[in-house]
Amino acid sequence: MDTISLEELNTTDELVFLAVLSNIYEHGAWIAERTAGKRPFPTLAALAASMEQVVLGGGEEQQHALIVGHPDLAIKAVRPETLTADSQVEQSSAGLDRLSDEEFSRFHRLNNAYRSKFGVPFIVCVRRHTKDSILNEFERRLRNDQDTERHNALQEIFRIGRLRLARLMRGPDRLNVYGCLSTHVLDTYGGRPAGGVPIELYRISDSGAAQVIARTRTNADGRSDRPLIAEQPIPIGRYELRFALGQYFASGSPALPQPPFLDIVPVQFSIAEPEGHYHVPLLATPWGYTTYRGS
Amino acid sequence: MDTISLEELNTTDELVFLAVLSNIYEHGAWIAERTAGKRPFPTLAALAASMEQVVLGGGEEQQHALIVGHPDLAIKAVRPETLTADSQVEQSSAGLDRLSDEEFSRFHRLNNAYRSKFGVPFIVCVRRHTKDSILNEFERRLRNDQDTERHNALQEIFRIGRLRLARLMRGPDRLNVYGCLSTHVLDTYGGRPAGGVPIELYRISDSGAAQVIARTRTNADGRSDRPLIAEQPIPIGRYELRFALGQYFASGSPALPQPPFLDIVPVQFSIAEPEGHYHVPLLATPWGYTTYRGS
Amino acid sequence: MDTISLEELNTTDELVFLAVLSNIYEHGAWIAERTAGKRPFPTLAALAASMEQVVLGGGEEQQHALIVGHPDLAIKAVRPETLTADSQVEQSSAGLDRLSDEEFSRFHRLNNAYRSKFGVPFIVCVRRHTKDSILNEFERRLRNDQDTERHNALQEIFRIGRLRLARLMRGPDRLNVYGCLSTHVLDTYGGRPAGGVPIELYRISDSGAAQVIARTRTNADGRSDRPLIAEQPIPIGRYELRFALGQYFASGSPALPQPPFLDIVPVQFSIAEPEGHYHVPLLATPWGYTTYRGS
Amino acid sequence: MDTISLEELNTTDELVFLAVLSNIYEHGAWIAERTAGKRPFPTLAALAASMEQVVLGGGEEQQHALIVGHPDLAIKAVRPETLTADSQVEQSSAGLDRLSDEEFSRFHRLNNAYRSKFGVPFIVCVRRHTKDSILNEFERRLRNDQDTERHNALQEIFRIGRLRLARLMRGPDRLNVYGCLSTHVLDTYGGRPAGGVPIELYRISDSGAAQVIARTRTNADGRSDRPLIAEQPIPIGRYELRFALGQYFASGSPALPQPPFLDIVPVQFSIAEPEGHYHVPLLATPWGYTTYRGS
Repeated sequence: MDTISLEELNTTDELVFLAVLSNIYEHGAWIAERTAGKRPFPTLAALAASMEQVVLGGGEEQQHALIVGHPDLAIKAVRPETLTADSQVEQSSAGLDRLSDEEFSRFHRLNNAYRSKFGVPFIVCVRRHTKDSILNEFERRLRNDQDTERHNALQEIFRIGRLRLARLMRGPDRLNVYGCLSTHVLDTYGGRPAGGVPIELYRISDSGAAQVIARTRTNADGRSDRPLIAEQPIPIGRYELRFALGQYFASGSPALPQPPFLDIVPVQFSIAEPEGHYHVPLLATPWGYTTYRGS
Repeated sequence: MDTISLEELNTTDELVFLAVLSNIYEHGAWIAERTAGKRPFPTLAALAASMEQVVLGGGEEQQHALIVGHPDLAIKAVRPETLTADSQVEQSSAGLDRLSDEEFSRFHRLNNAYRSKFGVPFIVCVRRHTKDSILNEFERRLRNDQDTERHNALQEIFRIGRLRLARLMRGPDRLNVYGCLSTHVLDTYGGRPAGGVPIELYRISDSGAAQVIARTRTNADGRSDRPLIAEQPIPIGRYELRFALGQYFASGSPALPQPPFLDIVPVQFSIAEPEGHYHVPLLATPWGYTTYRGS
Repeated sequence: MDTISLEELNTTDELVFLAVLSNIYEHGAWIAERTAGKRPFPTLAALAASMEQVVLGGGEEQQHALIVGHPDLAIKAVRPETLTADSQVEQSSAGLDRLSDEEFSRFHRLNNAYRSKFGVPFIVCVRRHTKDSILNEFERRLRNDQDTERHNALQEIFRIGRLRLARLMRGPDRLNVYGCLSTHVLDTYGGRPAGGVPIELYRISDSGAAQVIARTRTNADGRSDRPLIAEQPIPIGRYELRFALGQYFASGSPALPQPPFLDIVPVQFSIAEPEGHYHVPLLATPWGYTTYRGS
Repeated sequence: MDTISLEELNTTDELVFLAVLSNIYEHGAWIAERTAGKRPFPTLAALAASMEQVVLGGGEEQQHALIVGHPDLAIKAVRPETLTADSQVEQSSAGLDRLSDEEFSRFHRLNNAYRSKFGVPFIVCVRRHTKDSILNEFERRLRNDQDTERHNALQEIFRIGRLRLARLMRGPDRLNVYGCLSTHVLDTYGGRPAGGVPIELYRISDSGAAQVIARTRTNADGRSDRPLIAEQPIPIGRYELRFALGQYFASGSPALPQPPFLDIVPVQFSIAEPEGHYHVPLLATPWGYTTYRGS
């Protein structure tokens, strides 16, 4: 996908501006049109806010049209060809295209209940979610009233739009739409960073199933060369880091018992803010450890 | 099962002494006979050592007879009626009566290899082991020479004997044959013991499968009323404590994000000394924790 | 000093009862007299509460007399012979007989201010305090009104009385008037209790001066044989434990740099509840440590 | 002081080169002369190594002359006018110009003993030391033999030279002659960096006296804006960080007792490598904390 800089967007021909931004909101070309005249924008955040202001100032009828213009969640029954390409990619990220029969019928029930209560599709920014957190959101939001849900739907549309905008743009200015998950292993036995420690990151479903989503190994400073998750929202949900500490301490330490007291150290935590910076260090000896949300 | 005190054993009729101790070693009534005359014993440990001395002083032939008098590990193919009652109970404790087909054929191969190398059955004190640690022992010990394995076999027979002896005896004097696993949850957020925390203890197999073996809840002092494991050797293997910390902090704390950063806290560790005292505390806030082998 | 059991007190001649309890409150023999008829008492706490009820039910005049019957704080200017023996001992415990000139004139000023505002001496249970915390209390209480201070004065008299009662009694039943300070050193480098660690306990004045008040050395279980403070209220104030960790790790560890990163580890904390149980453990490696209020 | 880049030094007129480098070693212009012809140097470290090679290849006589060309330690009795300007600045950094009478006579005794044993002045790179660590070095090195001390003296001259060289140079290439001391305060009670925490850094003498050498306050990320010590070797010795944690938790936390359990948190540690990077974080709640040598 071609990217464009804010400066180019500010100075380019209006037709190019519209071509670039017409898909920020699903079927929302009119929003880009009303935004074009407000150029230049000092920051990406100002551009995004300006588009959102067009929507918020657009009256209930237009807002309703925007909301109903969105597809239902891309669960099995929905034929993919009715989705825009962006929607297809986004909805597969949370695993909505890989539902079990039971999950599918649960989604189906919730979708129908939501549609019959509110008359509009359930909109959620799926890239910020896991399958489990979408189901939880679904059930929570079903209990809201009409006004709250119109507000929620627009907020989710804005989140989807900002993520699409972020991917279109290049340059130093960044929208605050991506989170970050990193770690750091300190060997408080030797008083130095623990290098060469294999680490796996798992996503844990509500049913307890673990699926590996990243593997790395600490460098000489005890960190991974790159964050475990970056340049994307961290889907709301439960995660587990597994540090292969036994392997690290097996070399170079005084004799340890067999099997060693600590081998794989699991650290389980949940992400509540997909845009948050989560630093989860481990301070370890062969006999104990400390972990915490750091910064 | 009736129990007897050391004092009674020291002063009772020799026939009773023999009846009580003839099954300490499999088919080893002669050992009890040669021990009877050495009464009285000041401690249980002295009694056990005396019986072991009879074996060690008995010459190679008798030691060999003692070793071959033991049954093979009670895997499926062995017909239970050939085992003494004690052997049946002991061998079921490690799950040897519940082997998968694959495990069974692995045991079978190892058993045959051991028998054909050493000409005697593989003897191990199964109550100190899990299925996985027996397999590991098997493979490790297969690499030994004859003398080392005769030594190992006798040591295992002595361990089996001491455990049987411990169960026969009542009174304050104890053999050092049981381990202990306990925990303690400190709320370093509130500066007090964390009461009412649900805790589960799992055994983790080498393949990663988790099986719950104990459940408890901390009392007002942050401890379980009884140790999680006590009055038995702790089988060598991997374990995981799971502390339901999210539930504890959900009540009475300042508002936490949803889902909370920490919910279930898993602490995975291995037991290398079945007779050891393992204290595994947790010092926790909603945002981090420390765990270690304590005392 | 002779002690007496609750049972004896319940059944002895009334004259003995009066002789024993007449000095529980300064110049308050009448309180013991009115309590005698209520015997027997099921617990010490019931006896203390009964005497306190006599005071609280005694009317303002008698309460005032009780309060003014107390001496001023035993600062230098007060001639000791006007104090009962109990008062002399208590008041020396907080160091009130060793005031600097400046402290003396500060106390003098506060005393005069209190007397001229409330018309009674300032009463405080000095065994629960340090010099600094008495000065802080003095300034805080000077801002109260008459009723609050009558209430405070009686509460302090009751605290003094319960401590005197506790010292008179023997037997298993205890008044909850003593605190406890203990520690525990865990070597999370070696995975075992840290034995033989020299520990000093200091009291830290508001000016920062440190005065050693206890010395001990951890036993094989990493604890001191006896609590650092016990069988007394812990005076409100700031304390510092100093663990000679460098000395401990110097023997038996892999080579550490010279000087070692950690040598004396100071842990500074304050006591706010003189009757509290304060357990302050240290989990340490040569490169870091964790400390907390435990239980 | 004017600085110069490595590139300029590599290409400038030889007279300039000599002028710049003639004072790297005390009275050692000849070393610069023999180095000039080896230009260009790819790195500062290569330049320093080249000058050191001139010394090491220069024969015992020249090495001896270099060593005796150094002044005695700048203790009171030494008249400052006999020192080069560089020497004066360096020697005041460790407080050698502010000795008590007792310290002075101890230095004097050691100086005389060293001179009479080795026939040369005691040379030490004072910027890497505190008064106490110099005295310890003095006593340790007095026990060496002649060859070891010639080696030590040259190594110290090289250290002095590299520090002088580092200060003369500008540009991205750096000699590894400076250490760094930093900290980081994490609030594991609130799950966020602890901002606004006042921190003091003290140097602790062997006699226990504390002298404040830096003050700072954590920023929003829980760090100090600049390291506490940087751009210099960290003098070998004992230090104490004092974190005003009580003040931090007093605002915004649930009610804490008065006085709070933790107020000033002292963390005492020693520096053994003046060129090391020492990161000493604090993970804290109102009831406990963890500290360690981090990275």
